[in-house]
Amino acid sequence: MAITTALTRLLGIPHPIILAPMGGVAGGRLAAAVSQAGGFGMIGGGYGNPKAGYGGTSWMDEQFRAAGNAQIGVGYITWSLQQFPELFDQAMERSPKVFGLAFGDEMQFAPRIKAAGVKLLCQVQDLDGAKRALDAGADIVVAQGTEAGGHGKSGRTTLTLTPAVVDIAGEIPVVAAGGLSDGRGLAAALMLGASGILVGTRFWATPEALGSDRVKQLLTLARSDDTQRTRVFDIVRELPWPDGYTGRALVNDFSRKWHGNEGALEKNLTRETEAYWTAARAGDTNTSVVFAGEGLDLIHDIKPAGEIVRTIAADAEDLLTSRAGIEIG
Amino acid sequence: MAITTALTRLLGIPHPIILAPMGGVAGGRLAAAVSQAGGFGMIGGGYGNPKAGYGGTSWMDEQFRAAGNAQIGVGYITWSLQQFPELFDQAMERSPKVFGLAFGDEMQFAPRIKAAGVKLLCQVQDLDGAKRALDAGADIVVAQGTEAGGHGKSGRTTLTLTPAVVDIAGEIPVVAAGGLSDGRGLAAALMLGASGILVGTRFWATPEALGSDRVKQLLTLARSDDTQRTRVFDIVRELPWPDGYTGRALVNDFSRKWHGNEGALEKNLTRETEAYWTAARAGDTNTSVVFAGEGLDLIHDIKPAGEIVRTIAADAEDLLTSRAGIEIG
Ligand SMILES: Cc1cc2nc3c(=O)[nH]c(=O)nc-3n(C[C@H](O)[C@H](O)[C@H](O)COP(=O)(O)O)c2cc1C
Ligand SMILES: Cc1cc2nc3c(=O)[nH]c(=O)nc-3n(C[C@H](O)[C@H](O)[C@H](O)COP(=O)(O)O)c2cc1C
Repeated sequence: MAITTALTRLLGIPHPIILAPMGGVAGGRLAAAVSQAGGFGMIGGGYGNPKAGYGGTSWMDEQFRAAGNAQIGVGYITWSLQQFPELFDQAMERSPKVFGLAFGDEMQFAPRIKAAGVKLLCQVQDLDGAKRALDAGADIVVAQGTEAGGHGKSGRTTLTLTPAVVDIAGEIPVVAAGGLSDGRGLAAALMLGASGILVGTRFWATPEALGSDRVKQLLTLARSDDTQRTRVFDIVRELPWPDGYTGRALVNDFSRKWHGNEGALEKNLTRETEAYWTAARAGDTNTSVVFAGEGLDLIHDIKPAGEIVRTIAADAEDLLTSRAGIEIG
Repeated sequence: MAITTALTRLLGIPHPIILAPMGGVAGGRLAAAVSQAGGFGMIGGGYGNPKAGYGGTSWMDEQFRAAGNAQIGVGYITWSLQQFPELFDQAMERSPKVFGLAFGDEMQFAPRIKAAGVKLLCQVQDLDGAKRALDAGADIVVAQGTEAGGHGKSGRTTLTLTPAVVDIAGEIPVVAAGGLSDGRGLAAALMLGASGILVGTRFWATPEALGSDRVKQLLTLARSDDTQRTRVFDIVRELPWPDGYTGRALVNDFSRKWHGNEGALEKNLTRETEAYWTAARAGDTNTSVVFAGEGLDLIHDIKPAGEIVRTIAADAEDLLTSRAGIEIG
């Protein structure tokens, strides 16, 4: 079976499910697994800054190799990519089907992406952002609600942002992101007018995702109420995020200590940064960040990415054809 | 046409749309209009405290009279109702079909509501709240996301809370609330497993709602990005809300000045409270609060409540029967 929407037509895929380009988590193997199952996989280049523990041209070469022949995309954090122009060129040389930009001014890269015939995917957090993305020529606009794992904003939720963006996007497919982890989420997003969903956290809990098994296990145990949007992990990692952005992550000892005390953290930065990276290298998630979205309540197991794609699609198809089992008439 | 769900069966209504018991806004006339159109109307008793500018037994008598013979419910803010036991008795004497409790320990009232054969509706903001409501014998659990206008919490959104509550509610109907203003929202909520939606802000922009035309007009002009969760209006009104609750309201001069400076507001309370009530009496919404939800982007007009019920229902039916126009197969 297949669901046909403006998104599936644009990308030539049977299931309107995109793997979020999670920095350092969505590598080539995961991207390929999602694409091979009929969704669309994206490699997450993130900051492109080797300081983040991944990234750089040789890391990205490795991920492209791991993806093999699968049709995939690549995504970067816009404001950071500006500092690493060689990464942009490297990705474009690989002719990805889709180039994803999020968090920053897409006009820096949009014209070159469009000129190369690569589809431009822009992730936005509010209506002004959506207007800017449309002006920049986005082929796909991702409406990212505050539910999302990782970076984003706190102002708008997936449920209200999606239809509001649909109302201004005309023919351009809108994809909902944030908190969507199962077939119910896909079916609901389609009802809101979206042409598909972009899914992050759910795909981290897969064998194909990068990262340790311990962290993946943690995702299956933690609950939605254990996540929080915060700046403390960006402060301690000395990542100069523009105003307004926060990251949704599991609450841990570090964020319990510093969230709400950001000024004090900044004063103790040298000491805390060293301690942070020591803990991160040791895999200590009581200190180091685990980004995760508000859809955690619906994630209970680690399973292959392809199975997740197929299950989400099949469950959504069932809900849509059976009208969620609801009688009308 | 009609949509049949566990909620419509329980209440004997054709459309799974409940009017939120908005304190001082959802009076008898609005409640009756929603019920007569096939939804379910609830009178919002709010604090039950005449200090709030409405409430008390004679105000409630008036609302019950205005509702006439329509089958309706009544809702109160739980922690405040505890101070006004006569209001509970008054409402129960009128044999409402549904008694709504939100924000506080429902066990104070649940046994008497259940014993009288009145359906108990509990509005909750997280999974622990949902468990408590189910333990208290709730007949309807409303999963209220942070999108909601008026009071609530900031932790969870409608999109992720609804399916998570559905997963623990068994046979008890779950109703989604917060940011739902049109047929897309109803169809999406049903896909998430909800049996219906509870709608506030959209019903305030109706001729039947209490309140001034100027405020209703404001709702049609303001946008979702103009709303914010804040405590400042509770502080200045000296309403002792329990920890964790905030109200989503339009950002105005007053909240711009004091949001983030709550300590200073508390220090200047005598002066600010007097100024606040003077402004409120004059209808000055640059100072006084206008509660509104994140669904504002989808609200562009004032129209009769019955038309809203019928349009939401018809649009959702269209989306469900046409599968949002999406091809499957
Ligand atoms: C671990 C993790 C890392 C992420 N890294 C990025 C990133 O580098 N670039 C980006 O655009 N989005 C990133 N995101 C956000 C995703 O693009 C997407 O918005 C989000 O995962 C959707 O919400 P969900 O996690 O609830 O599915 C990340 C999300 C997670 C969970
Ligand atoms: C003006 C206004 C007043 C409200 N007053 C109450 C109230 O007194 N008691 C209550 O349980 N909920 C109250 N609410 C919250 C609603 O029950 C409901 O959760 C909310 O309106 C749903 O979100 P929406 O406004 O986006 O539709 C109020 C909401 C608004 C907009």
